[in-house]
Amino acid sequence: MELDNAFKDSLIKLRRNLHAFPEQGFLEIRTANIVKENLTSLGYEIKSGLEVMNKDYLMGYPSEEAFKAHIDKLNQLNEALPDFKDGYTGIVATLDTNKPGPTIALRFDMDALPITESEDSNHYPTAHGFSSKNHGSMHACGHDVHTTIGIGLAKLLMDHKTELKGIIKLIFQPAEEGVRGAKSMVESGVVDDVDYFIGSHIGLNAKSNEIITSVKGFLASSKLDVEIQGVSSHAGAKPQDGKNALLAAATFVQQVYAIERHEQGASRVNVGTLQAGSGRNVIADKAYLQMEVRGENNIVNEFMIQRVYDIKSGIEAMFGVKINITKVGEAISIEPSENMEQTIYSLLKEKFPKLNIIPNETTPSGSEDATYYIDSVMRNGKDAIYMNIGSDHEYNHHHPKFDVKEHDMFNGISCMYEIVKLYNGN
Amino acid sequence: MELDNAFKDSLIKLRRNLHAFPEQGFLEIRTANIVKENLTSLGYEIKSGLEVMNKDYLMGYPSEEAFKAHIDKLNQLNEALPDFKDGYTGIVATLDTNKPGPTIALRFDMDALPITESEDSNHYPTAHGFSSKNHGSMHACGHDVHTTIGIGLAKLLMDHKTELKGIIKLIFQPAEEGVRGAKSMVESGVVDDVDYFIGSHIGLNAKSNEIITSVKGFLASSKLDVEIQGVSSHAGAKPQDGKNALLAAATFVQQVYAIERHEQGASRVNVGTLQAGSGRNVIADKAYLQMEVRGENNIVNEFMIQRVYDIKSGIEAMFGVKINITKVGEAISIEPSENMEQTIYSLLKEKFPKLNIIPNETTPSGSEDATYYIDSVMRNGKDAIYMNIGSDHEYNHHHPKFDVKEHDMFNGISCMYEIVKLYNGN
Amino acid sequence: MELDNAFKDSLIKLRRNLHAFPEQGFLEIRTANIVKENLTSLGYEIKSGLEVMNKDYLMGYPSEEAFKAHIDKLNQLNEALPDFKDGYTGIVATLDTNKPGPTIALRFDMDALPITESEDSNHYPTAHGFSSKNHGSMHACGHDVHTTIGIGLAKLLMDHKTELKGIIKLIFQPAEEGVRGAKSMVESGVVDDVDYFIGSHIGLNAKSNEIITSVKGFLASSKLDVEIQGVSSHAGAKPQDGKNALLAAATFVQQVYAIERHEQGASRVNVGTLQAGSGRNVIADKAYLQMEVRGENNIVNEFMIQRVYDIKSGIEAMFGVKINITKVGEAISIEPSENMEQTIYSLLKEKFPKLNIIPNETTPSGSEDATYYIDSVMRNGKDAIYMNIGSDHEYNHHHPKFDVKEHDMFNGISCMYEIVKLYNGN
Amino acid sequence: MELDNAFKDSLIKLRRNLHAFPEQGFLEIRTANIVKENLTSLGYEIKSGLEVMNKDYLMGYPSEEAFKAHIDKLNQLNEALPDFKDGYTGIVATLDTNKPGPTIALRFDMDALPITESEDSNHYPTAHGFSSKNHGSMHACGHDVHTTIGIGLAKLLMDHKTELKGIIKLIFQPAEEGVRGAKSMVESGVVDDVDYFIGSHIGLNAKSNEIITSVKGFLASSKLDVEIQGVSSHAGAKPQDGKNALLAAATFVQQVYAIERHEQGASRVNVGTLQAGSGRNVIADKAYLQMEVRGENNIVNEFMIQRVYDIKSGIEAMFGVKINITKVGEAISIEPSENMEQTIYSLLKEKFPKLNIIPNETTPSGSEDATYYIDSVMRNGKDAIYMNIGSDHEYNHHHPKFDVKEHDMFNGISCMYEIVKLYNGN
Repeated sequence: MELDNAFKDSLIKLRRNLHAFPEQGFLEIRTANIVKENLTSLGYEIKSGLEVMNKDYLMGYPSEEAFKAHIDKLNQLNEALPDFKDGYTGIVATLDTNKPGPTIALRFDMDALPITESEDSNHYPTAHGFSSKNHGSMHACGHDVHTTIGIGLAKLLMDHKTELKGIIKLIFQPAEEGVRGAKSMVESGVVDDVDYFIGSHIGLNAKSNEIITSVKGFLASSKLDVEIQGVSSHAGAKPQDGKNALLAAATFVQQVYAIERHEQGASRVNVGTLQAGSGRNVIADKAYLQMEVRGENNIVNEFMIQRVYDIKSGIEAMFGVKINITKVGEAISIEPSENMEQTIYSLLKEKFPKLNIIPNETTPSGSEDATYYIDSVMRNGKDAIYMNIGSDHEYNHHHPKFDVKEHDMFNGISCMYEIVKLYNGN
Repeated sequence: MELDNAFKDSLIKLRRNLHAFPEQGFLEIRTANIVKENLTSLGYEIKSGLEVMNKDYLMGYPSEEAFKAHIDKLNQLNEALPDFKDGYTGIVATLDTNKPGPTIALRFDMDALPITESEDSNHYPTAHGFSSKNHGSMHACGHDVHTTIGIGLAKLLMDHKTELKGIIKLIFQPAEEGVRGAKSMVESGVVDDVDYFIGSHIGLNAKSNEIITSVKGFLASSKLDVEIQGVSSHAGAKPQDGKNALLAAATFVQQVYAIERHEQGASRVNVGTLQAGSGRNVIADKAYLQMEVRGENNIVNEFMIQRVYDIKSGIEAMFGVKINITKVGEAISIEPSENMEQTIYSLLKEKFPKLNIIPNETTPSGSEDATYYIDSVMRNGKDAIYMNIGSDHEYNHHHPKFDVKEHDMFNGISCMYEIVKLYNGN
Repeated sequence: MELDNAFKDSLIKLRRNLHAFPEQGFLEIRTANIVKENLTSLGYEIKSGLEVMNKDYLMGYPSEEAFKAHIDKLNQLNEALPDFKDGYTGIVATLDTNKPGPTIALRFDMDALPITESEDSNHYPTAHGFSSKNHGSMHACGHDVHTTIGIGLAKLLMDHKTELKGIIKLIFQPAEEGVRGAKSMVESGVVDDVDYFIGSHIGLNAKSNEIITSVKGFLASSKLDVEIQGVSSHAGAKPQDGKNALLAAATFVQQVYAIERHEQGASRVNVGTLQAGSGRNVIADKAYLQMEVRGENNIVNEFMIQRVYDIKSGIEAMFGVKINITKVGEAISIEPSENMEQTIYSLLKEKFPKLNIIPNETTPSGSEDATYYIDSVMRNGKDAIYMNIGSDHEYNHHHPKFDVKEHDMFNGISCMYEIVKLYNGN
Repeated sequence: MELDNAFKDSLIKLRRNLHAFPEQGFLEIRTANIVKENLTSLGYEIKSGLEVMNKDYLMGYPSEEAFKAHIDKLNQLNEALPDFKDGYTGIVATLDTNKPGPTIALRFDMDALPITESEDSNHYPTAHGFSSKNHGSMHACGHDVHTTIGIGLAKLLMDHKTELKGIIKLIFQPAEEGVRGAKSMVESGVVDDVDYFIGSHIGLNAKSNEIITSVKGFLASSKLDVEIQGVSSHAGAKPQDGKNALLAAATFVQQVYAIERHEQGASRVNVGTLQAGSGRNVIADKAYLQMEVRGENNIVNEFMIQRVYDIKSGIEAMFGVKINITKVGEAISIEPSENMEQTIYSLLKEKFPKLNIIPNETTPSGSEDATYYIDSVMRNGKDAIYMNIGSDHEYNHHHPKFDVKEHDMFNGISCMYEIVKLYNGN
């Protein structure tokens, strides 16, 4: 399926609109309104908010202050943004053909990163006037493109509705960054009835016109916030009266980096930020750390978490401090469907002779919370896969100058359309 | 010498004026203008700024942003503040009797602390409407009272000029908090010609109507800012490419707390604040620590500093980071004049039978940069001492509810007047 | 090739003789004399000692005391042990058919472990009267069996000399434990002319009657001895005068366990022993650590070593100590010949239908210095492989009750004979 | 009182006899037999062993092996050593004048150190043939002299019995090194009836012919043995299965050196020895540490112990190990009698015009378990003091070449005789 130029132009316009106002996790209020408006007008049945998100599994939900600040910015836009101001920005748009057939679901993530976009004139979005107007936030991971692919695919499928059977679900997810949003959607049951599931990404070091049918090497990961509460004291006069939260934090850091290696696979650990103390001559009574662990599989990741909790107990006993650990994000490792990989690989090879179709990629890399959907679907005995749409990018994901070639999103739409046709075509 | 009530009332008014607009170190712009105006009108010869401060020995001088922010606040006051906007707020006011005699100097510090004053109605300054109007700064260590004592003493001495001989120098110093300001004044030579020097404080856990002739147990101390520069990297994908500034900082912290004890006296060490890293999944490339060391004497303090530098070198080699250490404050230990202690003790016992005169206090406590003047004068073979004016205070120094009984400052003025008369009376 | 019973009985006798007098690395004096005597009487050309070992690449060579103690024990045996008392116990026995053909080499290791063998009556060697008579040393890794296989194979090949072409080299190596002996033999050139190389082991959790054609997952590893030299001082009276080797060692240990993970593969680090200090109230002036690092490949292993040296530099700077690191063992990772794997797999499948032939095993496990031969041969463009002869063992390798089923060694001899015939048969 | 030359010669002979066979704590079997024999023959009433030692308060009692080895050595001496083979080597020799009067007690310690005496010919005991014949043990702290002073004083007092009143108790104590022996004697009640107590030492950097009436600056100290029990595992294959006792020990060490300073006085901490692990590639399952803490006073020492226990709990939780801490020695700080100091100072000034009598010495130095007697007596409202007999010594206490000038012991005997006469003279 080749897309026509007017459609392509509209999608480029949409992508640039989204790119210009990036919104971080659970704050995708404008973005979700745009998605809902588009999908509604196309005729999709929409479920959103707590219909498709389980509140008990929310992770890393922003503070009231963060909401207030973002809504203040939105108010200055003078746009009608009727929905989603509560931050439950998940959307499931369903096309029910009313013909018997399987249920297929595709997931698109919508959120941006806490990165300030480059104002350098050789940065394409800056040069073309669509760089971030939401200072401090940036679509530096391509989720603007993902959202656009989802909307583009929605249009194409609705245009060809008569050729389809079964049910097609398009899942628009908040807060993939920090792997926070997927679990609450999965736990609300959005993929319980799904026979085929496809997660996807753009870029990831694959070149333009490459499609990797199945990306496998995701690391399981947990994101933890650690608060240490000690007791302050004057460091000169009463050194023995403090419970030193800063020294406790330093020891905690030292110990988590020294967690044992595990025979069952690679692990990672990082304490990315640490804030402690109030004054030079005061024994610090508070420390706050943001950390993460990863494992080549869930067993290793769970081992890392268990060891972090052991260390927490040790630090509490050693320094007389209280430590509170909050899980603010989590992703798991997956074993996707080999059947689906082979089926789709053959399909794309045949349908897109000009593209470079690569069957799979297994190198361990980052983490993805699409793994929750995949794991859930596979446990039900159904098929799920995660594919990658290649696109040249000079700078890495999460770099202030990250940019993909936007026309590569058309490859994504075309491939996904053919895949849906394969499983849900009449 | 008993002070008359009108004079007392004017001093209380002045003290409350100063208390209501506390200014932190080197930012005592309004305060210094008030001091200069008062002393000038009394007929003192004024030297100030770089006449009495050696720029090469400034420590912990504020950033441009800090100056800008403070001057913005001052501009809103609509007061004429002609001088000191450069932050060189030191003042030496001289009364030259033109009669042969010794030179005596007394030092008063003017700066406030980065503490937000209590708004509790049982806090005396709040109840009486003179609590801090410079939010985030507070006279929580009594330097407002010190400045008032200096101005009150100036008036009394000028009123009795004919009874005096030699030269009297009143030194108003910036930035005693963080022990930053004294050294630059001493190094400009302000006490090079001094025969008798008196530093002083109010409170320090001595009760109202107590005077401690000589406080001895000051700890030598150095205040150090530590910046660690590493290299960031993605914690999941490229863990081996980072130079982890946060882990380096944690190890640094652990090592400085483990510095050896020293046979020649007590030591202290504290890392009071630590800020590191930019994101959870990024290996931190920057860390910033505020720390201090102390020693019962200068040898121990120097040992502590040397060990901090050893640790710096070790951390650099171990983690491949670069560390920059800046000295932002320093005080030394002292051996004040025993002669002067005994002379003054006898004088005050005789002149003030209703006060409780205590000869000395040797318990190691905090640090004071008046020690620089005392050390300099004693090295010249002259006499110097540090005295304490007792005053009941329910809360400790540096507490948001710290307050002394303001009438105790009259004891201070009276005692100092008698001491000046003793040495410089006709 | 089925072995006859008399031959089998003689091999069992030989194996039990070797088992009963285990000798640790470079001390295999009796063992090497037995090997040399057997191979010489069979008609092999023998090279040994510094003819086949390069002194510059010796690692972990024992101390003079260790030699003296072992030779004292040997003297009590009243056996003629004419050779090898210098500890250069490597032997290469060559069968030159004088017919054109390839050169094939097989390596057998001879050394034992510093483990005290179980005296429990349910331990087979104890029950059958051939457990270790060299107290404190034990063949707990099956090298007694390896040596026996080598001698058995030598006999079989010589018996069938006329059916062979080319050259067959049997390499008997000292000090595989601690991965110390191989490198010096490889660096003397013993496999420079080799076309096919086979390393092998017995046991390794494979069951009796299993043969694993190619074992691949060896971890590169380096064994390091670390000596820390500080300065002692009285801990009560002169704490500041010491250079604390024990605290330096403790910090070193913490830091090496916290070495970063590497994207290119799994790593391991262990400090297995630590001895420090001389008395409770003395600051320790000496510490001695035995450690090892491992990597899934040589890049990761080298990274670990580099980081250990960074930490060494850091500790030296931080504590004012001197650290000496000696490499006492090393093994590398390998990529063995896939051709040879497939060829041998097919051969064994055909020749030994009753055995369970498994093509390969890739799980990362321990380290092996046979990897040096394999790497050297593969770099020359020739073929090399490491095979495993399964044998039930209730207890793990290196356990005081470790024992294999000794009859499984006949599978090893038979398989190796067929492999030699395949490459070097007329 | 001037001693006659024959008496002096006999004491020198006795001292050299004791010096030549030094015995460590609780192993003073030969020494105690010599003491008992001498005192019995002088006519003293003897109590010993469990009559004067409370078994519940023994600390650092040697192992069976240590006893066996020492008794083997004693057996080779061919001396009659009828008593003390159980190691309860404490002796109290009493002279009851049967005249009303106070009870005075003097304490002498008998044990040697685990030091190998210098064989250098310029070392006086070596040059004069009385250096240690008990290899590995040495009287490097002068307790041989102390014991001799005690026996010499006993003779003098008995010779002058008729001039005395009240009761004189001479306490010969085991195991002062490691501050192990005193507490069990005090807890058996040996000073419960005492009105005046005198502890003493020779040397301690005071010169020959100096007497320091009262030594005050003893540090409270506790000696702790720390055993860590973990779980071993293969470091390459099963890194996650170990509970790493060596890493736990390293972290423990790091943390105890980082224990906070205390406002109430100086502290010390030292881990003097650390032994951990069994093999390079095995995760260590055992670690053993010998450590000590000290405090300028008992409050600070108790604080240090409490923090060690906090750290123990932390390490256990963090690493899953079990830690056992045993107190193997303890001394306290003291506030001796000022009255007694002044009385004795005046006495000695008068009686010994040729000696340099120094009233007191307050510098914090080492630890002494005579403090237990002093504390007990002072708590009963009686008087106690610790005096020092000066004696030039080129090398420090505990050095393999330590030696005092033996004739200075006569000053000790003379002074103590006069003191006893002062309090217990008719």
